[in-house]
Amino acid sequence: MTVKILIVGFGNVGQGLAELLVEKERMLREKYKTDVQVVGIVTRHWGAIVDEHGLALSRVLASVLAGKGFAHSGYDLQSQTTAELIENLDYDVLIELTITDLNNGEPATQYIRLALERGRSVITTNKGPIALHLKELETLAKTHHAVLKYEGTVMSGTPVLNLIEHNLAGLEIRKIEGIVNGSSNYILTRMEEGLEYDDAVKEARELGYLEADASADLDGWDAVAKVMILAGVAFGVTLKVDEVQRRGIAGLTRREVEDALGQNKVWRQVVELERGEQEGCLRAAKAGLRLLGNGHPLAQIKGAGNGLVIYTDVMPLITVSGPGAGRRETGYAVLNDLLSICTEQC
Amino acid sequence: MTVKILIVGFGNVGQGLAELLVEKERMLREKYKTDVQVVGIVTRHWGAIVDEHGLALSRVLASVLAGKGFAHSGYDLQSQTTAELIENLDYDVLIELTITDLNNGEPATQYIRLALERGRSVITTNKGPIALHLKELETLAKTHHAVLKYEGTVMSGTPVLNLIEHNLAGLEIRKIEGIVNGSSNYILTRMEEGLEYDDAVKEARELGYLEADASADLDGWDAVAKVMILAGVAFGVTLKVDEVQRRGIAGLTRREVEDALGQNKVWRQVVELERGEQEGCLRAAKAGLRLLGNGHPLAQIKGAGNGLVIYTDVMPLITVSGPGAGRRETGYAVLNDLLSICTEQC
Repeated sequence: MTVKILIVGFGNVGQGLAELLVEKERMLREKYKTDVQVVGIVTRHWGAIVDEHGLALSRVLASVLAGKGFAHSGYDLQSQTTAELIENLDYDVLIELTITDLNNGEPATQYIRLALERGRSVITTNKGPIALHLKELETLAKTHHAVLKYEGTVMSGTPVLNLIEHNLAGLEIRKIEGIVNGSSNYILTRMEEGLEYDDAVKEARELGYLEADASADLDGWDAVAKVMILAGVAFGVTLKVDEVQRRGIAGLTRREVEDALGQNKVWRQVVELERGEQEGCLRAAKAGLRLLGNGHPLAQIKGAGNGLVIYTDVMPLITVSGPGAGRRETGYAVLNDLLSICTEQC
Repeated sequence: MTVKILIVGFGNVGQGLAELLVEKERMLREKYKTDVQVVGIVTRHWGAIVDEHGLALSRVLASVLAGKGFAHSGYDLQSQTTAELIENLDYDVLIELTITDLNNGEPATQYIRLALERGRSVITTNKGPIALHLKELETLAKTHHAVLKYEGTVMSGTPVLNLIEHNLAGLEIRKIEGIVNGSSNYILTRMEEGLEYDDAVKEARELGYLEADASADLDGWDAVAKVMILAGVAFGVTLKVDEVQRRGIAGLTRREVEDALGQNKVWRQVVELERGEQEGCLRAAKAGLRLLGNGHPLAQIKGAGNGLVIYTDVMPLITVSGPGAGRRETGYAVLNDLLSICTEQC
């Protein structure tokens, strides 16, 4: 079957997704009987292009990667606004990849609402709408017989949210601990190798590991958003930003890192969620800085990697680790969500 | 909805499953709208009991745990054979939990065939039929619009097979490395702590970690079966037993273990599968003994734990670790498969 998608936002993740769609076109058709057509791409900086029969992605990518935006893509720019395109174009799934805003989740949340209200399924990698409005959006999706997927909001394409929802069905999750901010972890690992905090931050920035607003990583805001998302997915609990205890890695000195190593311990930025006594309550919701003994599964997560430890009633402890970011890795999260929508609905 | 299940084999795993069904009855009804009725339990030693309206599991468990078989269960023993019950009883899902036989996969394979031919779905934790006959059984299931699930055959309830099938959809798996035999790993870990091989084996036996035929664990046969299962699930390749290189931990001395530690390495029984150039071929299929550096993700797996490292084209490396065995852990694998059948089919 053919699935028509509309992509809103075409930065790293959108481009990574487009590359995967080009590379895997044949495999998707043969193995999953799925023909993905990108009927529109909407961006803030370059405008919007559409083709109801599917854009020629290789040409679009070449134009973008040459720094020409859509100018060399061979398509005319559209005059409609993003909202108008979401409301009027003929597509099956909206892929929402705009920049995260943790204050109000806009404009992404509005885009997602518009698509769901039309009965269109939505995939997003945007932490804002999921951290702030998950319950509302899931209800909206249900009402309109649509599906909302967001695997890429936590640990990129490393399967954790779908794992919690499907593969751990029937278990009672008691606690989750995780390293979910790759750039913090990269900086900590480099400090363990002898770098000063400032030099490690500089290196992480040069490698593209830090968000445009570095405070999101260094002060723990990104980890806070992921705590809010995990609270919703694993415990059905809606948290406000100020209900999550927060401490980022900013301010940690090389001396403190070395002292920890001397005791066979490591500093890690660890998120922590623990089920409370009452349904719908958490005993703990933290994005903090912790000193972990070498035996802790998360102490082994080095560099920009991410990891999650899930404690449940029957299975004492399950650990999943893998990439936490990356254009292709997060692009893959979208592709996986897309295949799961196609399998469920088609 | 009500799902009627017939359980064949009621050892540790069957009893673990039954306990979970009792404990989680209300949750299954409320959260998953699923009412599980066990309409029959068939065993080699205690005979068979049935109740078309669902057996009183607590009473059956009490009788079994008191060492009385089904004598105090309040049900009359049936005179039909296992095959007759599989062919004649009214049920939706056959839960096949008999003892693994790696030579021919019997009698389990025959039981599974009978159920699938009736269009009934099947869940098994039995490595024999899946290692030896996966392709045939999957074709049979497809032909009869039934589902075959077998998460519990590798790493008990730690979700790896379903993860490979669903959560990594669209990825090309290049290589898999894993520790999939918990008892070997337990023995190696204890030898690292100073025990001689024989003492560590004795301890593992006392803890119930070793299979009745200890050679399955110590000589690597159990790991070979899991290589064969992973070859089918991850690469679509059917392997014969003698196509898997095998070396178990038997014969390893404490001296060798200590020498490894002195070089910051550890001995691990590692399974290894690597995609070949041609579709349907593997470059490597091993259940061997390897010296791992401390940085290898599998070097961190201690005690009876299991872990799998999956290398793919887009996501470089994903690691999953968790329990590899246990009555409740493997019972949970069955419960998870059951919920996924109910979600897909109902």
